[in-house]
Amino acid sequence: MLPAPGTGTGPGQAPGTSTEPAPGAVAGPGPGGLALAGYVGRSKDRVLATLVDWVRIPSVSAEPSHAGDLAASAELCRRLLEEAGLSDAQVWPTGTAEEPGGPAVFGQWLGAGPDAPTVLVYCHHDVQPADPRSEPWSTPPFEPKVVGGRLFGRGSSDDKGQALMQVEAARGLLAERGRLPVNLKFLVEGEEEVGSPHLGALLQQRRDQLAADVVVVSDTTMLAPDLPSTSVSMRGLVAFDIVLRTARADLHSGIWGGTVPNAALVAARLAARLHDSAHRVTLPGFYDRVVELSEAEAASLAAVPFDEERYKQQAGVAYLEGEAGRSPQERTGTRPTAEVVGIHAGYGGPGMKTVVPAEANLKLALRLVPDQRPDEVEASLRSWLADEVPPGVELSVARYGGVKPLVTPLGHPAVKALAQVIERVWGKAPVFTREGGSGPEEALSRVLGAPVIALGVSLPVDNFHAPDERFELEQLWRGILAAGELLIELGALGRPGLGPAR
Amino acid sequence: MLPAPGTGTGPGQAPGTSTEPAPGAVAGPGPGGLALAGYVGRSKDRVLATLVDWVRIPSVSAEPSHAGDLAASAELCRRLLEEAGLSDAQVWPTGTAEEPGGPAVFGQWLGAGPDAPTVLVYCHHDVQPADPRSEPWSTPPFEPKVVGGRLFGRGSSDDKGQALMQVEAARGLLAERGRLPVNLKFLVEGEEEVGSPHLGALLQQRRDQLAADVVVVSDTTMLAPDLPSTSVSMRGLVAFDIVLRTARADLHSGIWGGTVPNAALVAARLAARLHDSAHRVTLPGFYDRVVELSEAEAASLAAVPFDEERYKQQAGVAYLEGEAGRSPQERTGTRPTAEVVGIHAGYGGPGMKTVVPAEANLKLALRLVPDQRPDEVEASLRSWLADEVPPGVELSVARYGGVKPLVTPLGHPAVKALAQVIERVWGKAPVFTREGGSGPEEALSRVLGAPVIALGVSLPVDNFHAPDERFELEQLWRGILAAGELLIELGALGRPGLGPAR
Repeated sequence: MLPAPGTGTGPGQAPGTSTEPAPGAVAGPGPGGLALAGYVGRSKDRVLATLVDWVRIPSVSAEPSHAGDLAASAELCRRLLEEAGLSDAQVWPTGTAEEPGGPAVFGQWLGAGPDAPTVLVYCHHDVQPADPRSEPWSTPPFEPKVVGGRLFGRGSSDDKGQALMQVEAARGLLAERGRLPVNLKFLVEGEEEVGSPHLGALLQQRRDQLAADVVVVSDTTMLAPDLPSTSVSMRGLVAFDIVLRTARADLHSGIWGGTVPNAALVAARLAARLHDSAHRVTLPGFYDRVVELSEAEAASLAAVPFDEERYKQQAGVAYLEGEAGRSPQERTGTRPTAEVVGIHAGYGGPGMKTVVPAEANLKLALRLVPDQRPDEVEASLRSWLADEVPPGVELSVARYGGVKPLVTPLGHPAVKALAQVIERVWGKAPVFTREGGSGPEEALSRVLGAPVIALGVSLPVDNFHAPDERFELEQLWRGILAAGELLIELGALGRPGLGPAR
Repeated sequence: MLPAPGTGTGPGQAPGTSTEPAPGAVAGPGPGGLALAGYVGRSKDRVLATLVDWVRIPSVSAEPSHAGDLAASAELCRRLLEEAGLSDAQVWPTGTAEEPGGPAVFGQWLGAGPDAPTVLVYCHHDVQPADPRSEPWSTPPFEPKVVGGRLFGRGSSDDKGQALMQVEAARGLLAERGRLPVNLKFLVEGEEEVGSPHLGALLQQRRDQLAADVVVVSDTTMLAPDLPSTSVSMRGLVAFDIVLRTARADLHSGIWGGTVPNAALVAARLAARLHDSAHRVTLPGFYDRVVELSEAEAASLAAVPFDEERYKQQAGVAYLEGEAGRSPQERTGTRPTAEVVGIHAGYGGPGMKTVVPAEANLKLALRLVPDQRPDEVEASLRSWLADEVPPGVELSVARYGGVKPLVTPLGHPAVKALAQVIERVWGKAPVFTREGGSGPEEALSRVLGAPVIALGVSLPVDNFHAPDERFELEQLWRGILAAGELLIELGALGRPGLGPAR
C-alpha cells in the first residue's frame, strides 16, 4: 500500500542529508508501562539483524526471474512464525503449476479459546522492483544499511519491516506470558505489489482456515510520529476498456476528411464529457450512493496538515485540479473519481500521417467510495455511452475488476481499541485518514466477513515504491509495542465486544 | 492522386462482374475529326503492349526493396520519351547517395519557338504497394491482364496509363506532323505515392530547365465517361504534432487520481474543442480567408451526381458528419477541415493500468482551401493553444509541411481550352471538381509560377490504391486524343493568350 503524499515531515531525501527531526524526538509517554517494553528493549539487535536478513532477499514479485527469491523470502517468513511460537506455519503456493503466483505464508495460534476473538494479521513479503523510477539509490537496494536510525533497503518498510513488527509482537507476548490474549492468524501475502492476482482465490479456498473476527493490516503509513494516524477506508475500483470503431479502416484525410466520423474525435469527446465544468463525473447517478463523511471524520481529516507546494512537488505537477469545493485530501481519499488512464487512436509514430482514424481505445479507471457499487457504476457507464456515442459507431466495453470501497466506521470497537493503543504508544490520539487506492483489504473484508483496521507505522518519507526506501527504527520499536497492546485490547473486548462477525 | 469517392458509376468490382456500362457506349462525337484519330486507331496494340510491359515492373516507391524496379521503370519511361521523339530524355536521381529517392524522368521538345507556349506535363511512374488493404486481387497485381476492355494491374491507371497517354499524344503529333504546336517538357516523378519528399528540392534545382507557361497534370480522375470532369483545385495542408506534459511521470490513480491534471484529459478536451457544435473549426480567424465558390463553380459542383449510400459504403462508415449547412462534396473539396489524425496518452496495452497519464500526443492535420495560408493557420493554432491549454501544462508544437491550397480559376484560358477539348472528345462540357487532397501540384505551380490544369481520364471505379486497380482502355484512347487536342489548343492560344507567366 502507498502512503498519502503531501503529508508527513518532508520529501524523500538521501541518507545523511535529512532535515527531519531526529528519531525518538517526539513527545509522548514512550514505552514505559507497555506490555512489551522490556521485550523490545532486549530484542533490538536480534530484530534488526532479522530484518536485514529478510530485506537482503530480493523478493520482487513483478519479475519472474525472482521466483526463487520469493520462495526464499516465504520460507524465512515461515521460519519466523514458527520461531515466534505459532503453529501450522506453512507456505501456501498460489496460481497453478504452469503459472505459479507468489507464495503466501500462514501461521496461527489458537489457544485463547472460543470466547476470545480471532485476529487475522495481513502483511506481505514481496517487494517492488528496485528502481521503477529513474533516480538512483544512495545505497544498493538489497544491501540493507542503517543510517541515522533508519534502515535503508527495498522492502524495509513496505512491507517486511511491518510484517516483522507483527511477528515480534506475537513472539514477545508468547515469550513473556506463554499465551496470547486472542486467537491469532497470520497471512503474509507474496504478490501484493503486483495487484494480488491470486488472493481472491486463495481466500475463497482457505476461507475456513482464515476465518477471523477482525483483520489487522500492517501495510500503511502514519502521517508522522508526532501526528499518528490510521486509515479507515480504501477506495473501490472498477475499470473499463472501451473500443470505438467508426469505419472499416483508417481513411485518407484528403479524400474523406471533413465528412466522415473520426474515431479519435469520438473518443476525445467522450473523455471531455466525462466531467462537467466543476470536474464532477457526469455518469448518471454516479454520486447517488456517495456517503458524506461524518462530522467527526471530517474534522479528523481537516486536522491533517497539508502543504500544497510540497504536494505538487512530489507529484511533479504545476497545478492541482479536481472536483470543485473539495480539498485535495478530500478529492483523493473521500471522493470518487473517473480517470482517463489511456486514450489511443490513429497515428502515433514519428512525423505525420494524414489519416482519419477508424478505431479508438479509451481506458477509464474509476475510484469508488462508500457506498458506490461497481455493478451500478458499470450499468451507469453503459447507459451513458449509449447516450453519448453516436449511433453507427461500433462500441465494445470490457470491464476490469470491481473492488468495492471499504470503510470501517470510526465507532467500531476495533477502531476505538486501535485509537486507544496508538494514543498510548505515540502520546496523541490518531487522525483518521482514508486511502485513495484500492488494495487487498476489500477482499479480506468481503470474503472473511470481518472488519479491517490498519496499524501502519511507516512514514510518508519512507519512500514506498521509490529509491531509498527506508524504515524508521524508532517506529519499528513503537510498532511492536503497539501491535502487542492491540492484541491485548482486542482480547479484552472479547468476541461479543467486537460486534457480529460474518 | 486519388479519385473522389461516391461519384462515377459504381464501386470497385472484380473483373467480369461489372455492372458498369460497356466501354465505348457513351454518347458523343467519337474520335472522328480529331488530330490523332488515325494514329490512335493504328497504335492500339503497340500502346497496350507497352503499358503491359511498364505495369509489369513493380515500381513501388514505399518499399526500399523495390529500388531496382523503380530504376527499371524510370529507364523504360526515359526510353519511351526518346522513342516518342523528345530530346534530352534522362533519368534524374533524387535524394542523396546515402538516402536515394525515387528517380524522376525528364524529356523535352523545344522546336515550337519562343512565341509558342511551353507546356510541362507532370505524371509519375511509381506505384502504390500491391495490397495496402486486406482484400485480395482477382489477378496478380504485377501480371497485367485485359478483361472486358480494362487493363488490370497496379499502376495501370495511377499513373503509368495516364503518363503513357501523354507520351503517346506527343509521339503521335510528332509522327504525323513532324513537330509539336507547343514547346513540351515531361516530368515523370518517381515518388509521388510516398508524398513527393524530394520534389520541392528537384523543382528548385531544375527550375530553369522545367520553366513552363502551363502545367498539365495527368494523375486525376473524371467522374464518368458520360460525365466528364476536370479538377481545378486541391486543398492545402498543414499538420501539427502537439505534445502536452502535465507531470514528471505517470502518477498512480489511487494516490493522485482526482486532484492532479491528467494529460490524456487535457488532450481530449483540446480535440473536443477543436470544432463547435456546427462542426466548424474553432481556431480564431480560421475561415476569414476562405473564398466562397463562384456561382458558376458552385453550379458545376452541384451538378455532380452523389449517391450517399454508396459513398458511405465506400468509406466503410455508417453515417456522415461535418460542417453544418454543407454537402459532403463541399466539405471534402471546398471547405477547410481540421482532423485529429492521432491522439495518444497513457496506457494502451492489453488489460488495464491505473495511471494518471503525464504526457499526451495530439496530431492534427488541417486541409486548407483558397485563400488560407499555412503560416496564418499555424499562428492561429498557437494562439488557440495558448488560450486553451491550462497554464502549467508543458506544451510543444511541431509543424509538419505547409502546402498552400491551389486553385486555377475557371476563367483561365488554359482551363477554357481544356474544357473545349474535353467536350470535343467526350461529347459533353466537363464538370469542374475540386480535389480534397494535397498533391505535388501546389509545388509545381508555386516553384514554376505557372497555372496547373488537370487532364485526368481514370475513373472513380479504377480502384486507385486498392486491389484490382484497372484502366478503361476506351478512356486511354480518348485520353491520347484529348492530350493531342490540348497541345493544339494551347499552341493556338500562344504565349500571350495564356496570360502572364511567373
